[in-house]
Amino acid sequence: MASANQTYSAQEVSQLLTRAFVSLGVPDGDAKDVADLMVAADLLGYDTHGSFRLRQYVNRLRDGGTNAKASVSVAVDNPSTAIIDGDDGLGHLAMRAATRLAIDKAGEQGVGWVGVRKGNHAGPASLYVNMIVEQDMIGIVGAVGSANHVAPFGGMDLLLGTNPLAIGVPAGKSPPFVLDMATTNAAAGKIKVLAQRGEPMPEGWMVDREGKPLTDPNKQSEGLLLPIGGPKGYGLAMAIGLIAGTLNGAAFGEDVVNFTKNTTGATNTGQFVAAISVASFGDVDAFKATADAVFDTMRKSTPLPGHEPIRIPGQDRPAVLAERETAGIPLHPNLVKALNEIADELQIPGLGTG
Amino acid sequence: MASANQTYSAQEVSQLLTRAFVSLGVPDGDAKDVADLMVAADLLGYDTHGSFRLRQYVNRLRDGGTNAKASVSVAVDNPSTAIIDGDDGLGHLAMRAATRLAIDKAGEQGVGWVGVRKGNHAGPASLYVNMIVEQDMIGIVGAVGSANHVAPFGGMDLLLGTNPLAIGVPAGKSPPFVLDMATTNAAAGKIKVLAQRGEPMPEGWMVDREGKPLTDPNKQSEGLLLPIGGPKGYGLAMAIGLIAGTLNGAAFGEDVVNFTKNTTGATNTGQFVAAISVASFGDVDAFKATADAVFDTMRKSTPLPGHEPIRIPGQDRPAVLAERETAGIPLHPNLVKALNEIADELQIPGLGTG
Repeated sequence: MASANQTYSAQEVSQLLTRAFVSLGVPDGDAKDVADLMVAADLLGYDTHGSFRLRQYVNRLRDGGTNAKASVSVAVDNPSTAIIDGDDGLGHLAMRAATRLAIDKAGEQGVGWVGVRKGNHAGPASLYVNMIVEQDMIGIVGAVGSANHVAPFGGMDLLLGTNPLAIGVPAGKSPPFVLDMATTNAAAGKIKVLAQRGEPMPEGWMVDREGKPLTDPNKQSEGLLLPIGGPKGYGLAMAIGLIAGTLNGAAFGEDVVNFTKNTTGATNTGQFVAAISVASFGDVDAFKATADAVFDTMRKSTPLPGHEPIRIPGQDRPAVLAERETAGIPLHPNLVKALNEIADELQIPGLGTG
Repeated sequence: MASANQTYSAQEVSQLLTRAFVSLGVPDGDAKDVADLMVAADLLGYDTHGSFRLRQYVNRLRDGGTNAKASVSVAVDNPSTAIIDGDDGLGHLAMRAATRLAIDKAGEQGVGWVGVRKGNHAGPASLYVNMIVEQDMIGIVGAVGSANHVAPFGGMDLLLGTNPLAIGVPAGKSPPFVLDMATTNAAAGKIKVLAQRGEPMPEGWMVDREGKPLTDPNKQSEGLLLPIGGPKGYGLAMAIGLIAGTLNGAAFGEDVVNFTKNTTGATNTGQFVAAISVASFGDVDAFKATADAVFDTMRKSTPLPGHEPIRIPGQDRPAVLAERETAGIPLHPNLVKALNEIADELQIPGLGTG
């Protein structure tokens, strides 16, 4: 497959994103913070959840759906639970605040569970899980998806998002365990990437309203994403929606606003961030050594005929990060074009295309 | 399908189970408590996780693998986290203690997260989730499965259990949301029931060591259970194993003891119980009303052609409970036979066979 990706330094991409946000009225510090988190997603290889999302964020800031001057606050506070109010700003700001608060509470109480209301799309959940894992804590992050692409099991009405779940567990010598999954067989972002690249979807990702396979990524809006394990994935998406949305006073179900199509209204996106202090359960080094041993056992086990060696979720991220920090972030030509169109619209310098 | 199930009152079944445990040295109070929890599973329709499991529990008590005189204790205690040490006794005792402690901590701090070590198989996770939901809290329970029936994704070595996850959310007029799922397409218990009934498994539940479909439930030990969503279900099973097992100092991975085959050794089974106080996030009645509205929207949505009406996980349990409390618990003739064989072995009165 032809791929004429050009690479850009993290700094260059971050500067473009920062300029874009500042030009739309976001304060300098917030703009740079969000840009850096988006670039962190790019550096880790979450290509569907980093700078790829600038178009959606820009449109909502431009049209007033996202509040450029948001002031994130603690709306509810208990010893080990809280709700962060994102003030309808860029979602990364509320999620970073929620993550920091969950870590603080876990350090004091053992576990911290912090919900977000009036948030927005905040990039990959693993960004926040990673911050927790770096503190020798187990992180669990869930979110109400930013558009309903999923029907209740056996149904055809789009009432659920892909409602992703990320879980991170620290290890010693091994890279940490980081699972970051949609509760559907495919994440919506992966379909957007295929559409941008002009490639078809495999069967099993989506069906149409008759229940028949749908493989054209440009027809995403005509179909349903399929949950993992049928009723089980549906149940997980429901549980995550109730805990990330309803519990926090955020939208879930028919109240969810499609954040791509509706650029003028608040989404009231809900998320949750849980941090569990490993030290509150026992010796951290002993835990890490046992986690390493478990991962080694899995990795050394025998593949089925014709299969690759066994992987631990997240194991390749550190290598991707190291590679991209050195060699730069490879961006698909269509993404570079899209980013530079945004730069033109906002009358800011774009990326070099030399 | 012919079904000559006979029904028995909860009291009659509980008395049989209690007598069995007492005859094996379990103190009267513990015996009755475990029996009542097993019958609670039967009454709710969790037919694979109630009195059906007596054979396994009896064999382990008889052979010393399970400690009849266990003394459950709090091994680690923090404001919002703790570890319960089950002293290798019947698993229900440790899990009930963990659930009560998690509820207490959630009431005080907002969330309580309690692990179990030195536990054993404890019936369906939803038993404990239900106790939490009754307190107007959200319950999350996970467990390391009591035998490894699952390989890491793409592998053939049995290093993982079905590692179930249950999540319960209180509602108002609606029955509570209760999801109780294995992270595999089929739970091991369902295969045991098919084997006892002489019925085949559908394709997709298991494959053999060549990756080919396996449908004979009596050949379960020759195959691998398949995780939901492939690598995603594998990742979930890993995460649950690390949090329910490794974090609590309990077994996970190659350390897991098959509690059916090994009746003489401690299993060091690990579980976790999390309780989240809805009141710590906001008004409980408002939450319940919103949950009701979400469930109504889902239930009233349009089924795909040829599908049943949309269901909410757990919605049928209250009706099953009411039916069985009135009409009795229907037991398959093979289960009645198995229970009465146990009664004969232990020289205690069995169930009437009408």
